[in-house]
Amino acid sequence: MLHNLEAIRFKNNKLELLNQLLLPDSFVYEECFDSKDGWQAIHSMKVRGAPAIAITAALSLASELHHLEHQFTVAELKDYIFAKLDYLCTSRPTAVNLFKMAHSMKHMIEVELKANQTYLQNPQILKEFFIKKAKEMLANDIADNKAIGKFGVECFGHKNNLKILTHCNTGSLATAGFGTALGVIRSLHQAGRLEHAFATETRPYNQGARLTAFELVYEKIPATLITDSMAAFLMQEKKIDGVVVGADRVVANGDTANKIGTLQLAIVAAHYNVPFYVAAPSSSIDCTKQTGQEIHIEERPAQELTHIQGIPIAAKDIQVWNPSFDITPNALITGIMTEFGVITKNNDGKFPVAEFLAKNYKTKG
Amino acid sequence: MLHNLEAIRFKNNKLELLNQLLLPDSFVYEECFDSKDGWQAIHSMKVRGAPAIAITAALSLASELHHLEHQFTVAELKDYIFAKLDYLCTSRPTAVNLFKMAHSMKHMIEVELKANQTYLQNPQILKEFFIKKAKEMLANDIADNKAIGKFGVECFGHKNNLKILTHCNTGSLATAGFGTALGVIRSLHQAGRLEHAFATETRPYNQGARLTAFELVYEKIPATLITDSMAAFLMQEKKIDGVVVGADRVVANGDTANKIGTLQLAIVAAHYNVPFYVAAPSSSIDCTKQTGQEIHIEERPAQELTHIQGIPIAAKDIQVWNPSFDITPNALITGIMTEFGVITKNNDGKFPVAEFLAKNYKTKG
Repeated sequence: MLHNLEAIRFKNNKLELLNQLLLPDSFVYEECFDSKDGWQAIHSMKVRGAPAIAITAALSLASELHHLEHQFTVAELKDYIFAKLDYLCTSRPTAVNLFKMAHSMKHMIEVELKANQTYLQNPQILKEFFIKKAKEMLANDIADNKAIGKFGVECFGHKNNLKILTHCNTGSLATAGFGTALGVIRSLHQAGRLEHAFATETRPYNQGARLTAFELVYEKIPATLITDSMAAFLMQEKKIDGVVVGADRVVANGDTANKIGTLQLAIVAAHYNVPFYVAAPSSSIDCTKQTGQEIHIEERPAQELTHIQGIPIAAKDIQVWNPSFDITPNALITGIMTEFGVITKNNDGKFPVAEFLAKNYKTKG
Repeated sequence: MLHNLEAIRFKNNKLELLNQLLLPDSFVYEECFDSKDGWQAIHSMKVRGAPAIAITAALSLASELHHLEHQFTVAELKDYIFAKLDYLCTSRPTAVNLFKMAHSMKHMIEVELKANQTYLQNPQILKEFFIKKAKEMLANDIADNKAIGKFGVECFGHKNNLKILTHCNTGSLATAGFGTALGVIRSLHQAGRLEHAFATETRPYNQGARLTAFELVYEKIPATLITDSMAAFLMQEKKIDGVVVGADRVVANGDTANKIGTLQLAIVAAHYNVPFYVAAPSSSIDCTKQTGQEIHIEERPAQELTHIQGIPIAAKDIQVWNPSFDITPNALITGIMTEFGVITKNNDGKFPVAEFLAKNYKTKG
């Protein structure tokens, strides 16, 4: 029996991942021994969701370091960790959390090495430092998601009986726990303000049908599955109160890269005057890029569209276009829900993303 | 080997249907002996597409009448035919062609019986009259589709290297042959003016992936398959020149019922200023209804979303909403391509559908 929906478990320096490719049919945890396993798990989408990918990458390297028997000097170990972090960043190109995790880990190691030069002459301590920081990421992500949920609920004012549409999977399975956009739905449900959740199936990988639907049924949240093509008709017929989606990357002007189909939902929501929110931890925000045009979009294999569980579902020899993400322009976004609060537009219609983050990072210390 | 893509064959009073549920894996014709078989084939979607449904219904009854051994009087036979037509109309609720076929057959029989009372005292002649009219429907549909293709091409003026997006299947498999929206793409290709066709997979029934892709590969038309969720990103990235879709029913103000997802495509096309055309024979136009709100939308079983080829692809116990069609309001439609020409909006922004038809029916005689 299932007790707690955890995509990522790290206990006694052992990393276990719930193989999401097998959901909802089978509920199987697989050990992820080292960074190579981590790379494979991310690349093959056994684990997915921007926050979960970054945490998996860090923890897979933590597991590797724990088991590492080779006698490195501290300098060699640092180079080893940096090289493995670079390698892990090649597993999937779109999620910024991965790059930020690698950058942040490198930065913390540099700072720590400078500050405690003598102390760190022992490579074992550097290993333990990395493992501790990776474990903190896991714990912090859950706390951040709960904060996103709290602020997300506030976006809907005093409205009750809310009908909310979401896309892809952004729940416990996409994060360390609780979830971002699905966390907001979870929070609304816990507050007794959700009438019904609607989830798109999210072709071609069916994260909505397989994972979000699984979480919603698991948590007994009243919910209905639709195809991606039904969102417009749903908004017209069922009077949806809001759309909440996650993000693989939010850039400085608020443009958001997220699962393919998000852009279409945002256009349709604007057409029906339905508020459209992005829910993402600050780790998904990348202020080194000014607009969405600078984001590289991953294209994935044709097989994802033409086959399901190995069975052909499309005509043989048809060409396929399979971009995994699209970019929703800031103009179509009502607000960006983060763990610090909701970023809304200034009077000039612009999202003050960098200012918002700077202020909150400063407060957070 | 395949020589000619025919969804419906009627030779020597024997009706054979290509079982489209088995495409693209298997290419199997199944005999449709009587109206009961016809009803089942339509209801189970072995045959689909508004024009094809109506023709199948008529021809299944034609086959039944040919084999009918019971000795009816002419009056009894007329009642029998009328009852069977009513029964066939219950197979699927949204396509108007079916109701129009039934209405038209009844009308022609009434007129014929009045005009040739003596002549028709022989029930065998009434049977043959019905069979002849059903066969004419099959032949006329192909001629009408070719005319739609010709007028459709003219909509794109002198533009070449066209990139056209279509939805669902509206080709040889959805009609007696050639197709409506896919017929327009076929005509553009034949005219050397098509650079590339894009087809949505059209969840939940995957008519795009299974059938349209099959036809496009079969005819060597350069084409790419996308998920329904990719249309907006496609328009942004690939500079689409037009969207052409079919119709299950066009009503007096131009509102159009078509495969679920059409409304969403129309909203997205309007967002990107991409012309959005409906291609439909006049038999799909229903001027007895003034607006789309009067159209009853068929809801189909949850199983269509949650399973593919019997294999579960969604979480167990999730609720499902599965409307088979949606209504695209006239405001989002650029023009309606028919076998008589293209209906465009008057200066007041309204489609003169009834006037257009009246003029052309008069000319046609």
